[in-house]
Amino acid sequence: MTPQPGSPGDVLTLISTGSATTRSDLARVTGLARSTISQRVDALIERGLVEETETGESTGGRPPRQLRLHTEEHAFAGVDLGATHCRVALMDISGEILAACEDPLLIGDGPEEVLAHVDRRLDALLADAGRPRAALRAIGMGVPGPVEFATGRPNNPPIMPGWNDYPIPEYFDGPSVLVDNDVNVMALGEHRHAFPGARHLLFVKAGTGIGCGIVADGKLHRGAQGSAGDIGHIRVSGHDDAGCRCGNSACLEAVAGGAALARRLRELGLAAESAADVVALVQAGDTQALRLVREAGRLIGEVLAGLVNFFNPEVIVIGGALSRVHDHLVAGVRETIYRRSLPLATHHLSITPSRAGVDAAVLGAGLLAVEHYLSPDNINRIVNA
Amino acid sequence: MTPQPGSPGDVLTLISTGSATTRSDLARVTGLARSTISQRVDALIERGLVEETETGESTGGRPPRQLRLHTEEHAFAGVDLGATHCRVALMDISGEILAACEDPLLIGDGPEEVLAHVDRRLDALLADAGRPRAALRAIGMGVPGPVEFATGRPNNPPIMPGWNDYPIPEYFDGPSVLVDNDVNVMALGEHRHAFPGARHLLFVKAGTGIGCGIVADGKLHRGAQGSAGDIGHIRVSGHDDAGCRCGNSACLEAVAGGAALARRLRELGLAAESAADVVALVQAGDTQALRLVREAGRLIGEVLAGLVNFFNPEVIVIGGALSRVHDHLVAGVRETIYRRSLPLATHHLSITPSRAGVDAAVLGAGLLAVEHYLSPDNINRIVNA
Repeated sequence: MTPQPGSPGDVLTLISTGSATTRSDLARVTGLARSTISQRVDALIERGLVEETETGESTGGRPPRQLRLHTEEHAFAGVDLGATHCRVALMDISGEILAACEDPLLIGDGPEEVLAHVDRRLDALLADAGRPRAALRAIGMGVPGPVEFATGRPNNPPIMPGWNDYPIPEYFDGPSVLVDNDVNVMALGEHRHAFPGARHLLFVKAGTGIGCGIVADGKLHRGAQGSAGDIGHIRVSGHDDAGCRCGNSACLEAVAGGAALARRLRELGLAAESAADVVALVQAGDTQALRLVREAGRLIGEVLAGLVNFFNPEVIVIGGALSRVHDHLVAGVRETIYRRSLPLATHHLSITPSRAGVDAAVLGAGLLAVEHYLSPDNINRIVNA
Repeated sequence: MTPQPGSPGDVLTLISTGSATTRSDLARVTGLARSTISQRVDALIERGLVEETETGESTGGRPPRQLRLHTEEHAFAGVDLGATHCRVALMDISGEILAACEDPLLIGDGPEEVLAHVDRRLDALLADAGRPRAALRAIGMGVPGPVEFATGRPNNPPIMPGWNDYPIPEYFDGPSVLVDNDVNVMALGEHRHAFPGARHLLFVKAGTGIGCGIVADGKLHRGAQGSAGDIGHIRVSGHDDAGCRCGNSACLEAVAGGAALARRLRELGLAAESAADVVALVQAGDTQALRLVREAGRLIGEVLAGLVNFFNPEVIVIGGALSRVHDHLVAGVRETIYRRSLPLATHHLSITPSRAGVDAAVLGAGLLAVEHYLSPDNINRIVNA
């Protein structure tokens, strides 16, 4: 954690954020000697991270050469693995999407089969984008279960049979691989895509289960063991008869998750096996399904009301399968938060359905890869290698 | 937020953290030209921030001169204002306490009277420490109510009559003044004093009311409006009959705060007006008071169990008046957290009574002042002034 001011990584940050984009600006802003700046910039150019153009603004004499990220050189991938789908997007170093695809895929087929599929899609997308495999520098991946972020190994994921403790990064030869749970990458994608100026944001995924991704001070908050945001097992009041798969009762997920709602609809004689079926019933105008979704919104709102008091976010985004009927769900969430949270914390609070939608996870996964690669520590490691 | 690598503030950080303590180390670590380093260091010395000694390790020739914080020059104050007390501590720039005092003082006497008292104590402590008033560069202050941190104005504080919107910083001529609520400065003090290595820590103050200070990634998390940590009005289950002063029911504070416990003991025919009376009854062995405190611990634990799932802290510290009977209180907290939180989040979780004790607030307030003063942005402002 020792600061190393003026490192190549710092210089790249100044260039990529547009804070200083000529050699003389860099020397002025950093106080580094002109010769040191030239060393730094040349190393960044040599490694294909930065390019220098002749198109600077003329000031009478020769226009100063502009520095910018070299978007033609590298490639980064975002991978969104769900229970039954796989999305892959290829990005350049600025986060622009170069190519993307989506397929049905069962996570339960196990890591070898699923990752082989991902690998083939990466090859195809790289070919589409006209970049060699060696250009792929980092892969970000979201998976539908808990992950030890430091090692990229799933940690007892309930719906990913065969994946427990599987070292996902080792499957890919070459690029850095960062694996996180789906709701964290969704939170990152939503933040960067729709709310880049918000310092503190919560992204709630309401689907079969219920989870939350936390952006604190612009960065993902994963907590001490990486389990932060696991709100599905927070207790809600008045439902002590509702048993949960975790062994406790009255967990939010056991009363407001898509699986719980489907079960209650079955008890009412309706055909509903999944969160998607619940959504379909609401969209078909079924009043019982509608009532249940709105009640689920209130229960999610009860938990969020407490978290609003605790965390004081600027934005709460509601995503996940159930958010496809967000009129009803978000109404219930809003109603309870405004009733139960403190006025100071709700006064400027925005509660909104996801804007990135189904792309939140793949965007966030790709940006996880790009941001890791551009972090000063990583750039310094690359330049000094 | 533009990074300015190699600024005077960065150089001072390298010196104060011990990362580079000679001019040649600074040049090597930063990549700055030797002449630039000399400019930076000379400016820091000229402003009394850094001193240079001859006591470096000999390497055959002349021993290199060592740079370190100049602890003789400046002074910083921590002020802990409670409902009925005032603590003031004077610190040097390294955070060492030079002198301290404590008096009974009623916050309800209003800002003019209370701040005049603080001001006299500052003069006395500065005289004790042999430093002129002009040496006092920053004051940190914790007050028992919500504060808009950016302006240092209390925001509708319920137990601070006369203080609403009062511009505390303007009372003091000269030093920077940082005002925060008491539980935030207690969290900072506890973290820096007892758990400096913990990345994520919660400090719970269980007294008349119940509040929480949040350290996320080593820094205070204040939230979007500065109201983060207000856990006293989170709903607990099974107490819908307990009305709260906030207008809702079943708030944690309304069932487990010291005022609520005292009221319930009065209903049982015992003499108890305050959290301190509850503590005295427990210490005298009263079984009803003991039962209530333990039950309060369980209710606080219920709320914290949810926050453990959400935030995944490494350490939870229990402080405040009720923590003086922490055997009973913390036992109740632990019991519920271990039953209700997810195993991954509790496996390495430490739940402990406060170690900084009554000094947590005054320490944290003083360090708030020192850390503000030493922040790179502030140092750059001073050096460039």
